[in-house]
Amino acid sequence: MEKTQQAVRPIYYADGSCYMLDQRLLPVEERWHAYRDYREIAEAIKTMVVRGAPAIGVAAAYGAAFAAAELAQQAPADFEERFAASCTELGATRPTAVNLFWALERMQRCAARMDSKATPAQIATRLLEEAQSIAREDEAINRALGAHGQRLLPQRATVLTHCNAGALATAGYGTALGVIRAAVAAGKKIDVIADETRPFLQGARLTAWELQHDHIPVTLICDNMAGYMLQQGRIDAIIVGADRVAANGDTANKIGTYPLAVLAQAHKVPFYIAAPVSTIDYTIPDGTHIPIEERDSAEVTTCGGQRIAPEGIQVYNPSFDVTPAHLISAIITEHGVVGGDYLQELAPFKEG
Amino acid sequence: MEKTQQAVRPIYYADGSCYMLDQRLLPVEERWHAYRDYREIAEAIKTMVVRGAPAIGVAAAYGAAFAAAELAQQAPADFEERFAASCTELGATRPTAVNLFWALERMQRCAARMDSKATPAQIATRLLEEAQSIAREDEAINRALGAHGQRLLPQRATVLTHCNAGALATAGYGTALGVIRAAVAAGKKIDVIADETRPFLQGARLTAWELQHDHIPVTLICDNMAGYMLQQGRIDAIIVGADRVAANGDTANKIGTYPLAVLAQAHKVPFYIAAPVSTIDYTIPDGTHIPIEERDSAEVTTCGGQRIAPEGIQVYNPSFDVTPAHLISAIITEHGVVGGDYLQELAPFKEG
Repeated sequence: MEKTQQAVRPIYYADGSCYMLDQRLLPVEERWHAYRDYREIAEAIKTMVVRGAPAIGVAAAYGAAFAAAELAQQAPADFEERFAASCTELGATRPTAVNLFWALERMQRCAARMDSKATPAQIATRLLEEAQSIAREDEAINRALGAHGQRLLPQRATVLTHCNAGALATAGYGTALGVIRAAVAAGKKIDVIADETRPFLQGARLTAWELQHDHIPVTLICDNMAGYMLQQGRIDAIIVGADRVAANGDTANKIGTYPLAVLAQAHKVPFYIAAPVSTIDYTIPDGTHIPIEERDSAEVTTCGGQRIAPEGIQVYNPSFDVTPAHLISAIITEHGVVGGDYLQELAPFKEG
Repeated sequence: MEKTQQAVRPIYYADGSCYMLDQRLLPVEERWHAYRDYREIAEAIKTMVVRGAPAIGVAAAYGAAFAAAELAQQAPADFEERFAASCTELGATRPTAVNLFWALERMQRCAARMDSKATPAQIATRLLEEAQSIAREDEAINRALGAHGQRLLPQRATVLTHCNAGALATAGYGTALGVIRAAVAAGKKIDVIADETRPFLQGARLTAWELQHDHIPVTLICDNMAGYMLQQGRIDAIIVGADRVAANGDTANKIGTYPLAVLAQAHKVPFYIAAPVSTIDYTIPDGTHIPIEERDSAEVTTCGGQRIAPEGIQVYNPSFDVTPAHLISAIITEHGVVGGDYLQELAPFKEG
């Protein structure tokens, strides 16, 4: 009998540690690291052991909980200030994905809401529960998002996705790939085209791996092949995740998303963003306010650890681009699918 | 005193051998191979020791000359037929670039035009001269093409190019990079943005290398970053080479060219094709008739020799795409720059 297959999940908490699958080593090796120190979690976010906007949020939440636990042991007078400083440190790891800041703010709000007589130890205990809630909720959100989004896909469809907005980018199930999983669960015949997503190759390494794991048909292409497939009429829809959605619907996502949106429009193919409401940044009116992270040139000059460009070559390596709202056919959230006037349509989802 | 710098040249004939720089090993290693057998030259074209439409044409011409020399030694009765068969073999190596077939036809025409009393040895001698003429002419053509094309560039410009349409893709000087070299020689300040060009990385490995060699400022990006740079208004023009231009101007070039043309139009940035007249295939009315080579999946699943995708993953690896003429601002040839009604504008350049 075949062994029951475990769902893909990149991060979980057990016995005082946060465990993370080292996504830099996939698909060649499945190595897990255990973290107990928030500084190590910050480093893991920075170096992309864990990546994907929602998963980064979950990791940061555990980081904040661990920072609180460490401070609780020392029981300093300035617990609050030092906890805030640790959250700032966790937030300084990656600038673009807003879920990171959303999760840290939620953790800080959770601490602030506690009884003024609560001890640091009690706060730390409560924060660990909160981090676990964030993780649990994230998967539930993705399942709700998937259920809404899958209705957009026809009975048979070839769907292109970029980067990895899958189980590996979240606490589980995925956003863009959650929509695909939900469509498959609904009995639809979905073929996935996965962009390899240079330079970090999240498509080749992660999306291909997790879809293969779930027996969902997937074909890998290089990023620059999507245009030709669209031209040939071989793509029915494009679905990607998001790192930050502005109040007007402008969306930052992995570099290479914007050209896909332009091509989708040129070929009249729907272009969907799948993102939990925690990805919406209501504080910024439009995409011009989203900071775009630039990463190390070595990501471009090497591939699979091999040097692929001359020594001393100048490199530009922006990690994200911004797709203007008018190129987005719909944004799929856990509360439903919205489109058209995003400023008005997204407003009711604002939390707090 | 600094050593005089040699011009980049990927193929030359000397002392009975055709020498080719192994472009698969650049920029890590500069290794030259000597070829005396046309079958080895066919293999070198197929495995991309030599690549780039005009350079493939030159290599095939030397291949044809060597095939004739080999047959001349055997002096068979069916010299003509066997020479034709060798040319067919050379032509079966790569299907898309038309310069390959153009060069082989020119070699066969050269043989056919000789006096009926000419011996196979005389024919072989003549064919070697013809191959050398093709190589010499190719560089002269590129210089003429560059002189015409550089007028399209302003005094200061950031020019994006895809793949390698440089000295390494030709007998010397280059087509798209020939335009850039000519602009630099004319005193213009040109910054080049080089797409890395997955999967074979001709941009990262070859364009970056040859521009660095010539001290022309170059910045390397991944293919999926061009859209963001265009959106930011940081690209003034796009210039690429061509593997085959149909009679109506539709142009096959390295995969990833078509999306650049769509993006260029969306951002009102001129999109130029730089190609010698030998790249025009007057026998086909439009791009739908251009065969698109698909290459091995290992090109996509590995990078720099390292596996970057799960075992058993399905891959689609088309090597070229077709840019419709209406997206091309101008085609730059050795006879001048044409645009608009390509069917009419390209017709006068038809040879023979």
